Amino acid sequence: MADAEIIAVGSELLTPSKVDTNSLFLTHELNALGVEVVRKSIVGDDRARLTGAIRDAMRNTRIVILTGGLGPTEDDVTRDAVSAATGRPLVFSQEICDVIAERFRRFNRPMAEINKRQAYLIEGAEALPNPRGTAPGQWLDSDGCSILLLPGPPGELKPMFANECAPRLRQRLPKLVIRTRWLRVAGMGESDLDALIAPVYTRYTNPVTTILAAIGDVHVHLRARSESETEAEALLDDVERQISGLLGDRIYSRGGASLEQVIGGLLLKRGATLSVAESCTGGLVAMRVTNVPGSSRYFLGGFLTYTDAMKTSLLGIPTELIAQHTAVSEPVALAMAGAAAKLTGSTYAVSVTGYAGPDGEAPGLVYLGVASPGKTEARRLQFSGDRERVRTLAAQTALDLLRRALLAS
Amino acid sequence: MADAEIIAVGSELLTPSKVDTNSLFLTHELNALGVEVVRKSIVGDDRARLTGAIRDAMRNTRIVILTGGLGPTEDDVTRDAVSAATGRPLVFSQEICDVIAERFRRFNRPMAEINKRQAYLIEGAEALPNPRGTAPGQWLDSDGCSILLLPGPPGELKPMFANECAPRLRQRLPKLVIRTRWLRVAGMGESDLDALIAPVYTRYTNPVTTILAAIGDVHVHLRARSESETEAEALLDDVERQISGLLGDRIYSRGGASLEQVIGGLLLKRGATLSVAESCTGGLVAMRVTNVPGSSRYFLGGFLTYTDAMKTSLLGIPTELIAQHTAVSEPVALAMAGAAAKLTGSTYAVSVTGYAGPDGEAPGLVYLGVASPGKTEARRLQFSGDRERVRTLAAQTALDLLRRALLAS
Repeated sequence: MADAEIIAVGSELLTPSKVDTNSLFLTHELNALGVEVVRKSIVGDDRARLTGAIRDAMRNTRIVILTGGLGPTEDDVTRDAVSAATGRPLVFSQEICDVIAERFRRFNRPMAEINKRQAYLIEGAEALPNPRGTAPGQWLDSDGCSILLLPGPPGELKPMFANECAPRLRQRLPKLVIRTRWLRVAGMGESDLDALIAPVYTRYTNPVTTILAAIGDVHVHLRARSESETEAEALLDDVERQISGLLGDRIYSRGGASLEQVIGGLLLKRGATLSVAESCTGGLVAMRVTNVPGSSRYFLGGFLTYTDAMKTSLLGIPTELIAQHTAVSEPVALAMAGAAAKLTGSTYAVSVTGYAGPDGEAPGLVYLGVASPGKTEARRLQFSGDRERVRTLAAQTALDLLRRALLAS
Repeated sequence: MADAEIIAVGSELLTPSKVDTNSLFLTHELNALGVEVVRKSIVGDDRARLTGAIRDAMRNTRIVILTGGLGPTEDDVTRDAVSAATGRPLVFSQEICDVIAERFRRFNRPMAEINKRQAYLIEGAEALPNPRGTAPGQWLDSDGCSILLLPGPPGELKPMFANECAPRLRQRLPKLVIRTRWLRVAGMGESDLDALIAPVYTRYTNPVTTILAAIGDVHVHLRARSESETEAEALLDDVERQISGLLGDRIYSRGGASLEQVIGGLLLKRGATLSVAESCTGGLVAMRVTNVPGSSRYFLGGFLTYTDAMKTSLLGIPTELIAQHTAVSEPVALAMAGAAAKLTGSTYAVSVTGYAGPDGEAPGLVYLGVASPGKTEARRLQFSGDRERVRTLAAQTALDLLRRALLAS
């Protein structure tokens, strides 16, 4: 496999709260081309340090990718640093200058004198068009290295890499087919899942299996490489079959669809509608359902009943039921889901009632309810962790419970 | 200011989905000690490459911090690489070996032979105790550099840095006080804000001003360094006063509080309560309000009315009003906020109705309503961008409108 280094340029990326996300996108794209990222660096807007970092990288790898620092100001040092590291002068390009000027005309803005800085190419470099921004990228082959200068804003970098850099890299690299699959799993922690499937995937170096975990949501990523597409797919089939056998219906999607997209698809297929009655999640379940474009075709709406009084006045839960069982109980979860379905006329309804914490009687105790045609069910869960974690797990588990109810009907 | 480089070691950190968060913690801690981070790198479990990276760093900075790669396996290459980069051999320490063995005894686990690898110190290094894990850290002064070897797990790294490294660094560094302030701003884009305040902050190198932007939420960070606390605070006062004059009531917090925390505080101070009626945001406003622990003291609940029919059946919006103005209109936004306040009995209510996109008649068009005691107001907004951006901006602007209504009452 070919090697690459990524250098992100920008002092703001060296502050305690900024993360370089461009390199994650680039790593994903490079891996798909069969290129391994062997080092990532972040360097501030410092010409000398950046020049040194580029020289270090050119000694170690054949592909060096720089992101950021292509703006028009003195702080934007990437062009200068590559020029210094390769000993190639910067050459003014009237052609690029005209493109930049045209862009300013189109937006009815005056072009400042400093923007001409963006019209300098490193000698021997090819300009990479940037329809989304002012600064063109640059591709330079020098000293046996391919050096790529890409803009920092993700909205400019991503299309430029896809349209300009990936095809050029593909031409230069040995032909290698990469095929990937995603298995998304709900209702299982990362370590339990890993313990279950590690006996399978550790026996294979191709495909490579990666496990990515968010709260309550684990993604198993399989990546196979081969000279032929058929063989890559066969390698994936083999491992996927074994992992699927172990995980069963805990797998909610295989193509990369989110849990709320899967639920939307199941509701649409059944011509069914959905409503919610949320307490401790405060709208999180509905927010996720309506993240999906077109969700108005199946999501009607619902009730946020954050206090006991609201459970009674908006949903009609009898005060005696709450007094007898407390608001965080199976009877109340069942009544909330039933009332939401009845009041909105929806086919399905989801309810959540619990203690998100950190204070209160039983932080992390949550009851979920799902009303389906002719059936209402509830589940008791005890989550651990902080408020955000409890709310995220409650919403995720509620959506997974709904998915299972939809599959069963 | 002293300079430092951070090198995170681990091939898993070079995959498309892993972010090195240890360096964010370390950057924060180092900045507080008056040390600037000038480069961050991530290197895989590759002895030769890591040795090269350490040599590069030792040429450029006086403080080199390595995280990870201190485990017992062949993959754990940090000790070997520092040994190679400095030309100092690894020396077995019976004392450290005894500490590790004791730890295994305490947990009733057998100590494997490979764990002895963790008992090797680089010649001249000081061991840093690790009460949370097996691998001790190491502090090495060599070739004019301080080289710190820290464990990768954050739960081990953080206390080790705080208890062992920070005191040693403080002793070696000139006394320097760092003081910071945050100004959080809603209702203004990053570039507009920067254009407004750059004439002030660019005149100062101390404090350093950094602008961090999320969708609809901009944070201005001021960091002053001085030998005395009084002077650092005076430097901050001077710049903060000027920036505050320009931003006015667009600043919603100064201590780091989130917009929903500020709103919670204002509601509590007034003994007031809140409800919502959300359409296109689908619960996002309520979800943010209830992110705050203790929000049940002022948030009652509300209505998710994602379809026109739900606006009528749950909130009682007359069908004629919707027919005449459409559901995305000022009269409907006003009626939704008024109905939510009336039906829940809340003091304040927020409503959102709009087209989140990407399809539909006018993607990004949103009407917001706020019902206050004796007054209901609405605002029309046209946002651009994708569905997530429109929903985030709608919720953020709704919360800011509520904040202003609370301040005015």
